[in-house]
Amino acid sequence: MIQVSPFDSVLYGALLSDSEAGVWLNDQAKLKAMLRVEGELAQAQAEAGLIPADAGAAIATAAASLTPDAASLADGTASAGVPIPALVKALKDALPADQDQARWVHFGATSQDIVDTALILNCRELITLFESRIKAMITALADLAEQHRDTLIAGRTRTQQAVPMSFGFKIAQWLSPLLRQLEQLQELKPRLLKTQLGGAVGTLAAMGDKADLTGQILARRLNLACGNNWHTQRDSLVEFSSWLSLTSGALGKVAQDWLLMSQTEVGEIRFSNGGGSSTMPQKCNPVNAEIILAMARHNAGLVGQMHQAMLHEHERSGSSWAQEWLVLPQQLMATAVALKHGLEALQYIEINTDRMLQNLGAFNGVIYAEAATFELARSMPRDQAAGILKQACAQAIQGPQHLFDIVAQLSGIQLDINQMQQRLLTDGATTAWLDAVLQRARTLTQP
Amino acid sequence: MIQVSPFDSVLYGALLSDSEAGVWLNDQAKLKAMLRVEGELAQAQAEAGLIPADAGAAIATAAASLTPDAASLADGTASAGVPIPALVKALKDALPADQDQARWVHFGATSQDIVDTALILNCRELITLFESRIKAMITALADLAEQHRDTLIAGRTRTQQAVPMSFGFKIAQWLSPLLRQLEQLQELKPRLLKTQLGGAVGTLAAMGDKADLTGQILARRLNLACGNNWHTQRDSLVEFSSWLSLTSGALGKVAQDWLLMSQTEVGEIRFSNGGGSSTMPQKCNPVNAEIILAMARHNAGLVGQMHQAMLHEHERSGSSWAQEWLVLPQQLMATAVALKHGLEALQYIEINTDRMLQNLGAFNGVIYAEAATFELARSMPRDQAAGILKQACAQAIQGPQHLFDIVAQLSGIQLDINQMQQRLLTDGATTAWLDAVLQRARTLTQP
Amino acid sequence: MIQVSPFDSVLYGALLSDSEAGVWLNDQAKLKAMLRVEGELAQAQAEAGLIPADAGAAIATAAASLTPDAASLADGTASAGVPIPALVKALKDALPADQDQARWVHFGATSQDIVDTALILNCRELITLFESRIKAMITALADLAEQHRDTLIAGRTRTQQAVPMSFGFKIAQWLSPLLRQLEQLQELKPRLLKTQLGGAVGTLAAMGDKADLTGQILARRLNLACGNNWHTQRDSLVEFSSWLSLTSGALGKVAQDWLLMSQTEVGEIRFSNGGGSSTMPQKCNPVNAEIILAMARHNAGLVGQMHQAMLHEHERSGSSWAQEWLVLPQQLMATAVALKHGLEALQYIEINTDRMLQNLGAFNGVIYAEAATFELARSMPRDQAAGILKQACAQAIQGPQHLFDIVAQLSGIQLDINQMQQRLLTDGATTAWLDAVLQRARTLTQP
Amino acid sequence: MIQVSPFDSVLYGALLSDSEAGVWLNDQAKLKAMLRVEGELAQAQAEAGLIPADAGAAIATAAASLTPDAASLADGTASAGVPIPALVKALKDALPADQDQARWVHFGATSQDIVDTALILNCRELITLFESRIKAMITALADLAEQHRDTLIAGRTRTQQAVPMSFGFKIAQWLSPLLRQLEQLQELKPRLLKTQLGGAVGTLAAMGDKADLTGQILARRLNLACGNNWHTQRDSLVEFSSWLSLTSGALGKVAQDWLLMSQTEVGEIRFSNGGGSSTMPQKCNPVNAEIILAMARHNAGLVGQMHQAMLHEHERSGSSWAQEWLVLPQQLMATAVALKHGLEALQYIEINTDRMLQNLGAFNGVIYAEAATFELARSMPRDQAAGILKQACAQAIQGPQHLFDIVAQLSGIQLDINQMQQRLLTDGATTAWLDAVLQRARTLTQP
Repeated sequence: MIQVSPFDSVLYGALLSDSEAGVWLNDQAKLKAMLRVEGELAQAQAEAGLIPADAGAAIATAAASLTPDAASLADGTASAGVPIPALVKALKDALPADQDQARWVHFGATSQDIVDTALILNCRELITLFESRIKAMITALADLAEQHRDTLIAGRTRTQQAVPMSFGFKIAQWLSPLLRQLEQLQELKPRLLKTQLGGAVGTLAAMGDKADLTGQILARRLNLACGNNWHTQRDSLVEFSSWLSLTSGALGKVAQDWLLMSQTEVGEIRFSNGGGSSTMPQKCNPVNAEIILAMARHNAGLVGQMHQAMLHEHERSGSSWAQEWLVLPQQLMATAVALKHGLEALQYIEINTDRMLQNLGAFNGVIYAEAATFELARSMPRDQAAGILKQACAQAIQGPQHLFDIVAQLSGIQLDINQMQQRLLTDGATTAWLDAVLQRARTLTQP
Repeated sequence: MIQVSPFDSVLYGALLSDSEAGVWLNDQAKLKAMLRVEGELAQAQAEAGLIPADAGAAIATAAASLTPDAASLADGTASAGVPIPALVKALKDALPADQDQARWVHFGATSQDIVDTALILNCRELITLFESRIKAMITALADLAEQHRDTLIAGRTRTQQAVPMSFGFKIAQWLSPLLRQLEQLQELKPRLLKTQLGGAVGTLAAMGDKADLTGQILARRLNLACGNNWHTQRDSLVEFSSWLSLTSGALGKVAQDWLLMSQTEVGEIRFSNGGGSSTMPQKCNPVNAEIILAMARHNAGLVGQMHQAMLHEHERSGSSWAQEWLVLPQQLMATAVALKHGLEALQYIEINTDRMLQNLGAFNGVIYAEAATFELARSMPRDQAAGILKQACAQAIQGPQHLFDIVAQLSGIQLDINQMQQRLLTDGATTAWLDAVLQRARTLTQP
Repeated sequence: MIQVSPFDSVLYGALLSDSEAGVWLNDQAKLKAMLRVEGELAQAQAEAGLIPADAGAAIATAAASLTPDAASLADGTASAGVPIPALVKALKDALPADQDQARWVHFGATSQDIVDTALILNCRELITLFESRIKAMITALADLAEQHRDTLIAGRTRTQQAVPMSFGFKIAQWLSPLLRQLEQLQELKPRLLKTQLGGAVGTLAAMGDKADLTGQILARRLNLACGNNWHTQRDSLVEFSSWLSLTSGALGKVAQDWLLMSQTEVGEIRFSNGGGSSTMPQKCNPVNAEIILAMARHNAGLVGQMHQAMLHEHERSGSSWAQEWLVLPQQLMATAVALKHGLEALQYIEINTDRMLQNLGAFNGVIYAEAATFELARSMPRDQAAGILKQACAQAIQGPQHLFDIVAQLSGIQLDINQMQQRLLTDGATTAWLDAVLQRARTLTQP
Repeated sequence: MIQVSPFDSVLYGALLSDSEAGVWLNDQAKLKAMLRVEGELAQAQAEAGLIPADAGAAIATAAASLTPDAASLADGTASAGVPIPALVKALKDALPADQDQARWVHFGATSQDIVDTALILNCRELITLFESRIKAMITALADLAEQHRDTLIAGRTRTQQAVPMSFGFKIAQWLSPLLRQLEQLQELKPRLLKTQLGGAVGTLAAMGDKADLTGQILARRLNLACGNNWHTQRDSLVEFSSWLSLTSGALGKVAQDWLLMSQTEVGEIRFSNGGGSSTMPQKCNPVNAEIILAMARHNAGLVGQMHQAMLHEHERSGSSWAQEWLVLPQQLMATAVALKHGLEALQYIEINTDRMLQNLGAFNGVIYAEAATFELARSMPRDQAAGILKQACAQAIQGPQHLFDIVAQLSGIQLDINQMQQRLLTDGATTAWLDAVLQRARTLTQP
């Protein structure tokens, strides 16, 4: 056991990996899926009349009960560059020696047919996991947005406080991309979840006039689209790779915000499960958010390799294909881990609404300048209002007086901060767009 | 003029850039689109009753006729980190000084609203270009596939000749991913081609109760989907970035094959526009294919940066946004260049079918071993046939006898190579799948 | 003019590009360097006795005075895949028609010899620029560190305030990697700054028994190391690419800190040249820092492509080489831009030491817990001290009392915050390591 | 056990991983190194007089004998975001309860001090492995180059045969970058192989006036350079990451050539351990070369992430640091795997010199055109010779006559192909440069 990747480490596993996703990513899961494909292929060929019916049944049975030891296939993998020849041999050996059925194992197929279709089967399981977690994230974020639609927070652009806004609305921006990820996934599925069956060079030549039919039956049996051959057409896998990184990227943006909001000097959120320190009692390290961000950047770093690996030579590239093996499983895991930490963080997040209000008070209320201008403009020409605010801001920013006090001195109008805050919570498109996002979220997540 | 990128170089431009795409990627195109957005925004606001009707009309007229000098805005861009403030000032200056309309320019919008929406407008033009080129590629490849459905070529896997196949079928594999790129693009468009209008922090607060309505009118006027605010939700741009790299990647796989097929020792294709050498008369460098491959790998290298740039902080990140500016235009150009060279290569490609046949003769016909086994199996048990072929191959591979002569000696059966080649052209799923790809290609490209 | 890259845009140039570096990166600079190499090659060959002395002189003279129009060479570049054949023709045309000297132009060389050596010449100029800017950065940072060695700031780990430290010491951490970048550059130079001269396939076959000698003379004339042939050995360029990204990465870490420190809620620094907003007077966008960060991430995204481009096929790869052209110039510019903004930021940075102290007061002084433990431990067993602090912290963190007041109540010992702050400024290795960095900085930057 | 990465898979391990390198990359190796650092730190602190001598000795003894179960530390890792707190607790528990030594464990250190220094210790072991393998590669390639200095092969540029050359010289181009990798490694080592010891925020504040001394003693004890604190200065790790990818990239270029040379139609090399196929007896898949290429592209894909991870925030970034964990171990393994396969391939490579000569005969000898021109020029003006060759080539390329026969007809001079081939083997700089590379290789690899 080598454990190069923290995804595979016991020591780092509880932090950086995910056992629920891992079920579909280990040697046993791969072998089981490969055997399933071999078994279903034999049955499909029997159904198509390409191989004897008894052979189809026997091969499927043997495949279902075989649990080959990964170690025993390792040398075969090394010499062939792929595990299938050794696995096929093991499957043949598991059939009765006297009934001449073994010759129909893997008939007319190529190793890549089995490995790729098995990969798709396991991806399907992981997609189910992703969907369920994304929906749970959406629900949790929608609840939080609803809960905080009337919480005022500083909108911040380019590191600077800009204009006050509804915290619920901010949360809706975290949520929206996840809705599109669900939508995109539905479009992607028919392209991704498909069989690979092309034989040596993609023509299924060895299956003669039963070739096309066999492919269709296999697809039906596996409940996949019929993919014909895509040995060297890796676009659907790359599209999926992109989706994986987009998903962790959407979460990464949220995690980035969480890290910024949980800074000591900002303090607007805090994770009660944060990592502590015995000598520094004030520390509450936002571990979940850190890991999400690391996963987002890791996925963003990996996705380009899947694009590089599109450049297969001729009818199969040993090196491009191997590059995929090194990358896609990591991406699947990184996305699972990011979602896991996202859900966990939402369980432990503590919102400090007092601190949000307090932070709005920085610089004596100049953050209300834009809103104050609009308010004054109700009683005077807009230009005049703007002029007053400009002067008031210049003064307020130096301190110590609050913007509204200065405005009162300059204009005779006493602005009401409570009223203004109330308006800022719903101003502009806030309500309409927040409602739209929430409704869409509810629709997409209803059981 | 700096010309850091060969995309922008005159010296390298005819080789590495594309003037047709460039029309939508230079300073003037950007400024024109930004001004269009400012103009339409003003008109939308007038229509919504947010600003005076005459102001809307005047701003739109001024925006349409203004042709600001990029140089005059450069300092403003440097100090604000974005060109809009200086552009807005120029637009205001272009309005009559006495009519108080200037104050309604850019009303309630933020710089990012304008820059992003303008980008989308120019992307829309480029997408039209991409679609037209992809369709032309599809047509050219479909014609070539049709023409060569009865041309036999060695199928090659992992650098080695594997099984003979139809060259038309091989071409269909080049073609298929482009069909999916068209399909994916249709799904992507409604997500990508949308307005950005959110104001300072995304809430359109300054537009009051006309906010949502203004957004909808603007979208209608620009014939875009209404995108609300996606200042920090960059998923659609990243999805598009992925599509761009997938497109050049699909072409890159073809170019890779072209490079391999045009090797001196393979000689199955040749590009009559290839680069020559006076001292090496045999040289015919496959320049188009080389550049396509370079663009594919460049795009694959760039796409990850767009994923990295998803991680905006709070309501706007100056650095993530600037990173997009450095990357997406290059990807747009790289895809355009790859398509341009793909189309050019297909004009100059010369297919050497004799050489294809001749290459099949390497190793005394052992490439026919699989097909020969099936042929013999018509007259004897399949195992016996396989045994004979195994022995014959071992002998043939050492030379000098042809496989079929050895088979004749061992089995008494004289295989007919012409008949066998004929069968290999249509064997298995070849005909069905080739037809399916061609039909789909014709459907998607019909006017 | 296309302007795909903001590096080449007039509109974005003052923000995202650098004209001083651009001098060495445009078409004219490339052509001038290529012509210089052709001229020096001819002179070297004349000196070696390979070509007539008059031809060598005439070619060098013509090369020095030729100023070819990039546009006139563009078609030649497109058809050959490289600009040299067209440039060589232009150079030949510039020689007297009757003296048979033109035939000695580019004698026995290959296009890559000229392009690569010219690239190295321009890289040498840029390296001089980088060294000068890095030294200026080092000096500015060293001055700042010296100035703030007695300024206390919160050390922060994982977004949380951790332990107070000297701000000068923090600055020394920004500075240290730049010292190593200078050191690494000296080691890299002899590997990078070398001629490329190998002829068609690297053997200089056409130069007969003068081959090696010619190469040595050329190197001497250009004041470069003699590189022999490295047509397909790109490691030195990739090592340089890595150095470029390491340099912008080192600055990127600083810029990241600047962005965090200039947040409204932190406010420890401010850039007086920051981008403003008329409606949001409190805004002071840290434009320099944003651009540095974007350049760091852009370079980090590009560097992998140079590694991908190492995989040349045989004696030259048209596609890998073209990929370098797309990447390395951008990296050179990105590093120059990052340094430019770094220097500018240091001119406009304003340090708010009051705010630093004030931020240390967050959470009623718990950040002093570690130091307080050590202080108490002078008067009691360390365990007992730790116990008191633990209890005091738990209480202080809830507020409203200051940690030291609670400690006084629990232990009877009144800690002196001024004294403690004084000690924290020099505690541990602070003084020794800060002095070491500063001394090294002074040594490396002394004239 | 999850096995996301093929590096950690049993099924794929013999193909894609390396057990010799794996020894330094698994949980046990990490824990052992971390404990060693804790033990040596305690001894260093005792030696410096910072902690009691008996405590130092006891801690070191306990650390040396402790073999903690990774699983028992996993939860602690998850909650703290790093394994050290749980490990420190385990180490404290292993000390006698009654002697008050436990409190001196990890005294004044921070988790990152331990994790980073432990990483460096394991990197040192892997560097020893890399050096030994690179030297073995150099020796094997130097032997092969020597053996084939008189073997003629077609030099090929941009996929086309260009000029004949010595195969030994070609091999020397494979070898040269490895020599520079060794050189670069010696320069890198003092920067990389250093302790990390900075305490909470890098100042070692808690170690008081023994801080600097403790750091120096620890470095001496671990036989590392004294690194002071580089918590957020990751340049040396990134430089190492670059070196790893440069090493696999240098091998990847060789593997690329091997794949091209072993193509059925080229057939100049063959790997006797190649993967076979029962139905396609002619297949001999170059598995080693494929995997090397995959590792080179994987490393090239990963290296950029290490550059991205340089952008630590303030005194420690939880997310940047975690991103390193995901990337650097993979790079270490990828380089080890590439070297392993490189050495294996050189054991099984079979050179087909006949085929090399035969391939030179393509196109009726036009590849000799350049050399023939020089030969004719001995008996006539060079221009006339060039004219004859130009005409002869045009004719030869159409077939069927050999270039030399046509030249004989046109010029009356019968060129001697054997003599010409002999000259091409040593022409130009071939001998000088080949000898120089071989001598350097011998020097660097002598025991």
